[in-house]
Amino acid sequence: MAGNSFGNIFKLTSFGESHGEAIGGVIEGIPSGFNLSLDKIQQELNRRRPGQSNISTPRKEDDILQILSGIFEGKTTGMPIGFIVKNNNSRSADYSKIKDVFRPSHADFSWRSKYGIRDYRGGGRSSAREHIARVVAGAIAKQILEEYNISIVAYTSQVGSVILKKNISGFGAHKDSNGKRLTEKEVDLNIVRCPDKTTANDMINLINKVSEDHDSIGGTISCVIYGVPAGLGEPVFDRCQALLAHAMMSINATKGFEYGSGFEAAHMKGSEHNDELVCHNDTIQCASNNSGGIQGGVSNGENIYFKVAFKPTPSIMKTQNTVDINKNALELNIKGRHDPCVVPRAIPVVESMAAMVILDLLLQNKVSKFC
Amino acid sequence: MAGNSFGNIFKLTSFGESHGEAIGGVIEGIPSGFNLSLDKIQQELNRRRPGQSNISTPRKEDDILQILSGIFEGKTTGMPIGFIVKNNNSRSADYSKIKDVFRPSHADFSWRSKYGIRDYRGGGRSSAREHIARVVAGAIAKQILEEYNISIVAYTSQVGSVILKKNISGFGAHKDSNGKRLTEKEVDLNIVRCPDKTTANDMINLINKVSEDHDSIGGTISCVIYGVPAGLGEPVFDRCQALLAHAMMSINATKGFEYGSGFEAAHMKGSEHNDELVCHNDTIQCASNNSGGIQGGVSNGENIYFKVAFKPTPSIMKTQNTVDINKNALELNIKGRHDPCVVPRAIPVVESMAAMVILDLLLQNKVSKFC
Amino acid sequence: MAGNSFGNIFKLTSFGESHGEAIGGVIEGIPSGFNLSLDKIQQELNRRRPGQSNISTPRKEDDILQILSGIFEGKTTGMPIGFIVKNNNSRSADYSKIKDVFRPSHADFSWRSKYGIRDYRGGGRSSAREHIARVVAGAIAKQILEEYNISIVAYTSQVGSVILKKNISGFGAHKDSNGKRLTEKEVDLNIVRCPDKTTANDMINLINKVSEDHDSIGGTISCVIYGVPAGLGEPVFDRCQALLAHAMMSINATKGFEYGSGFEAAHMKGSEHNDELVCHNDTIQCASNNSGGIQGGVSNGENIYFKVAFKPTPSIMKTQNTVDINKNALELNIKGRHDPCVVPRAIPVVESMAAMVILDLLLQNKVSKFC
Amino acid sequence: MAGNSFGNIFKLTSFGESHGEAIGGVIEGIPSGFNLSLDKIQQELNRRRPGQSNISTPRKEDDILQILSGIFEGKTTGMPIGFIVKNNNSRSADYSKIKDVFRPSHADFSWRSKYGIRDYRGGGRSSAREHIARVVAGAIAKQILEEYNISIVAYTSQVGSVILKKNISGFGAHKDSNGKRLTEKEVDLNIVRCPDKTTANDMINLINKVSEDHDSIGGTISCVIYGVPAGLGEPVFDRCQALLAHAMMSINATKGFEYGSGFEAAHMKGSEHNDELVCHNDTIQCASNNSGGIQGGVSNGENIYFKVAFKPTPSIMKTQNTVDINKNALELNIKGRHDPCVVPRAIPVVESMAAMVILDLLLQNKVSKFC
Repeated sequence: MAGNSFGNIFKLTSFGESHGEAIGGVIEGIPSGFNLSLDKIQQELNRRRPGQSNISTPRKEDDILQILSGIFEGKTTGMPIGFIVKNNNSRSADYSKIKDVFRPSHADFSWRSKYGIRDYRGGGRSSAREHIARVVAGAIAKQILEEYNISIVAYTSQVGSVILKKNISGFGAHKDSNGKRLTEKEVDLNIVRCPDKTTANDMINLINKVSEDHDSIGGTISCVIYGVPAGLGEPVFDRCQALLAHAMMSINATKGFEYGSGFEAAHMKGSEHNDELVCHNDTIQCASNNSGGIQGGVSNGENIYFKVAFKPTPSIMKTQNTVDINKNALELNIKGRHDPCVVPRAIPVVESMAAMVILDLLLQNKVSKFC
Repeated sequence: MAGNSFGNIFKLTSFGESHGEAIGGVIEGIPSGFNLSLDKIQQELNRRRPGQSNISTPRKEDDILQILSGIFEGKTTGMPIGFIVKNNNSRSADYSKIKDVFRPSHADFSWRSKYGIRDYRGGGRSSAREHIARVVAGAIAKQILEEYNISIVAYTSQVGSVILKKNISGFGAHKDSNGKRLTEKEVDLNIVRCPDKTTANDMINLINKVSEDHDSIGGTISCVIYGVPAGLGEPVFDRCQALLAHAMMSINATKGFEYGSGFEAAHMKGSEHNDELVCHNDTIQCASNNSGGIQGGVSNGENIYFKVAFKPTPSIMKTQNTVDINKNALELNIKGRHDPCVVPRAIPVVESMAAMVILDLLLQNKVSKFC
Repeated sequence: MAGNSFGNIFKLTSFGESHGEAIGGVIEGIPSGFNLSLDKIQQELNRRRPGQSNISTPRKEDDILQILSGIFEGKTTGMPIGFIVKNNNSRSADYSKIKDVFRPSHADFSWRSKYGIRDYRGGGRSSAREHIARVVAGAIAKQILEEYNISIVAYTSQVGSVILKKNISGFGAHKDSNGKRLTEKEVDLNIVRCPDKTTANDMINLINKVSEDHDSIGGTISCVIYGVPAGLGEPVFDRCQALLAHAMMSINATKGFEYGSGFEAAHMKGSEHNDELVCHNDTIQCASNNSGGIQGGVSNGENIYFKVAFKPTPSIMKTQNTVDINKNALELNIKGRHDPCVVPRAIPVVESMAAMVILDLLLQNKVSKFC
Repeated sequence: MAGNSFGNIFKLTSFGESHGEAIGGVIEGIPSGFNLSLDKIQQELNRRRPGQSNISTPRKEDDILQILSGIFEGKTTGMPIGFIVKNNNSRSADYSKIKDVFRPSHADFSWRSKYGIRDYRGGGRSSAREHIARVVAGAIAKQILEEYNISIVAYTSQVGSVILKKNISGFGAHKDSNGKRLTEKEVDLNIVRCPDKTTANDMINLINKVSEDHDSIGGTISCVIYGVPAGLGEPVFDRCQALLAHAMMSINATKGFEYGSGFEAAHMKGSEHNDELVCHNDTIQCASNNSGGIQGGVSNGENIYFKVAFKPTPSIMKTQNTVDINKNALELNIKGRHDPCVVPRAIPVVESMAAMVILDLLLQNKVSKFC
């Protein structure tokens, strides 16, 4: 109930603080007998790792995965996988000066109000470093989904005023006629993880500029889930989009979620928005995909796609006004080492949370029908 | 696990189909000894009831609440409240023609894929009539929250191209300097439930126009939660905004959710977006409220506000192309009796789901600190 | 969390008080497309119904099941089944005299301490009348289990000093060599539901005797579950026996639970207790069944059997000393209409709870292995 | 859902196998601001540790606790406590011979049926070594309960035919007139953990004798919970005794659970069994305690007491008949290093599980009443 778990059958329970011993978790509901690649998990951790490029925080962490249970002779046993990733590069001293100060738009004030105590070192558990546990679980979910021919790819679709034009062939709303899927590889061709080279360069330039200004910048991540069979989603409260929204809005710094036509739907008429059904190659399909692959809360076999808004990093090096726990006003200058834009490193986190949702629904769906 | 429950401590489990015997539910976690007004619950049901105005469906339902348990001598007993609302005006015959047809952008195809069987009468459980159960639970939650001086008000902020300008005094982002709160009464002054008379008229005119065109139109609902104490939200997966997003995206026809600065945050710099802290009247406050009353997933004492996008009603009276379960293409003409815009009647549903989230978090927060 | 739900996938949420409008519930997790017999559910309710024999309470209730949702054209739809059973024969006046009195060994004092309020009419929700909801859910579970060739039969094995000798052929610990299973029909041949005629008569005589003495008597129920495949039970906390114990100890008036060798195991040596494995007709079996069909918390394919102890009905017509809510001592004479022994009418309740556990584990087990 | 978690608010999720890297877990729901003694947790681990006496297994493990999160400057932060205890003395080679053999009355056959794969080293996760995680959580729960003046003491009440006589002053059914409570210290005065010296010696002698015979022996553990306020337990499915039964029957090797009068109640009349209420020192009390401190599933302020039956260790050094995974019959000689009687080392496990139940119910009860 305390908010450290996500999922029903495939379930992650995470623990750990930014500057504590380790970030870790327990993953339940992994079917037995699955050949798990630990390398693939580590690769996803590497995609999230700080210090990976010159537009991310210079803070370096190895983020090496240690699996403690649940695997025997290379296969999952049906037992929970316990794991840890140690925190090495924790300069707690960086934070001693701000231990009584509430940083603007951080968790400092609200968490202290809630718990009466605050682990001020790097934000404690409110740090995005907690996402490590999600990436481990997500990387496992992705591997299992692969066996069902489901792939999940997220990419940077906006940084500040630089916006990726929508209709790049092969991804977005509708199934490509060739069945082409955007791949992680294509997304990772550049450090901002935008699959259009020109737009990517503009984004990188913008990030570098705000960084030089000691400022930060917001953005959006778009995500497509390919190959989801019709039937995933649990009416009425655990609709596919409700779980995806829950998943995304539990990621640090997120401000909004939309799927399919999203907020644009508010402008549209039914006759424009409805996805007519057609029969193509003997299978029933939608002629358009404003539904975003989900109707009545349940997947319909089309691509699921959604977009998530991220706020600019609140840790900026400009002087800000704030107060301390004794209600004294003061001017704050945050030093630390922070990402000027959280979006590029949040890509694997978005994919991971989406993978957890889809695998969980896939497992839940195995008991829908009597047979 | 099957998706019929929402909440942890304060929890609704709902049942019922549009054209079955009744919509009903069980509400758990209501503290004992509370004087519950059944009238207030009925009033909220009346706000959602079909046939309430000439911009809603002409279908008439009394939607009379029957409480079956959990109350003794006017007070809650701590026992679960079981309740039903009978379905009276069910013209199932209306639906016999479409029993084998998949209506575009409805749950028909996806649910049949999932369950292999479909209650085609009025969409069965995929009908928005299921929201009745949520309004009952929400009306109870609201009453309890009132005792904590928390009020929740939603209003129509967009219908198609007609958009409510943001800065109407007394609601929206920031606490009014006079502490003024928008009220349900003010919202209900017109049938479209927009608290600005001129905009409301434009919205009503637009709805009437699309209705005459046998079409439908989308829109947005904005919601403000006043008086939430700092400390609600359960890190890290059950952040306040994650639960609100889950709640909203589980409502029929929703396409997007944003809180605080929302998608606008993607355009902003940290120095613009950060909410500086000030001490005012000996209490710590934010000088702005881009955070939407939530920081690090936990409420900070400011107004919580968010916006939800709704798609246009998929049931339109224009001819549409679709297929049936035998994969035959056909032209569909839906008759039935439908709302041209779902937004006005969805207002109490949005408020109800928000109330359930906030009360649940308030109860959960009673065990956060050792004392 | 409030204790009104039981199960994970197959899940009952119950509501209702003894003298309220109705007892009811919501059953989730029933796979779609199952042909449900409502008659069979009603038959199980009839087995639990008061006034069914001259050793049960003379209070008469029809206990007619009303299904409100989840079934369409005779089949389950995958949607939750909401149901109610109205309370008719509620003589609340019987209870007005004891509204401020704490009856010995009833829930009166402890529930009032907890909730600060008490629905004193017939014990409110603490009444065994709440079991109705369990019998409805159990009767559904039994029907589904039948399709898997699993049957569950409970019988009275002790009333006071009258104890059924253990080794009646065809039931008990070990699989009968002929695969014979005890049936509900055989158990229901007499009103005390003991499958040995002579013992049954002794039990009936004893119940009649204590009834004439204005007293009541305890007893035990034994239960055998036939045909459970190996593999049910979720290590480590939701072992098969742990869920059965939880289920049984949640039934009114139960005092103890044991399975397999039970408390007798405390007297035994490993060399006596261990169930050696043999291969018989090309299947691996146990040569004995002290394990009671469960090893390491998981079913092993043998009969599961267990025993539950019930206390004597606390409502007796003898004068008793007690106190009221104002702490005044007084002499209490309970009139009302009560069973002198709860065991015979608890038989379908024990079977129902067992059926719910086994079906839930069977559904959960569908996601154990990767395939 | 996969059975690795126990509790609602105060909740343990455990992981780890006997011969894996570590046993560990995540504990949620610990209120913030509590001064936690790590020494006290280690002491409880030491009470469970193998090799602690000459009647336990000679296998030596240090069982050193490592806390990874959730504590800052000596206090709980409200964040989950992640912890591990490394496995050092794992002689996996001991088990290679039996990797294809099903040991009688072990989890080998049932788990392999379930998962299709088996971590045969020391029983994998079916090993009682998993109890380590419970003892850590229980030791934390006990410390918090202490602040509420609640103490929990378990002791060995039977080993084979040696049975502790019931009415030792100061513990058992009824509150001692002096309010004397049995203490852990008194129980730990001898290695078998029976608080009567003579009986303890008989038990030790019996254990030594069966050990010399290469055999094992069963027993029972009794447990008393002192100081529980009236009001704990969640009707109707999560009654106090139902959760205690679930907790106890989830411990390895348990075969039965009874509370209060237990199975003896089946022999009794209502007039004998009912606990009359009296007013003593201005507080309402029971004149007897057959109810075992729980009525209607809710604590009534009296001592809660219960008894748990344990089977003899299935690992014995006598030759046994069994089969392997290829269905070949064979004679098995288990070497390994095993406890001849599991009861003495299970004492802290019983206390831990009881502490987890009571603390969880205490926290749940904080939201029962409106105030």
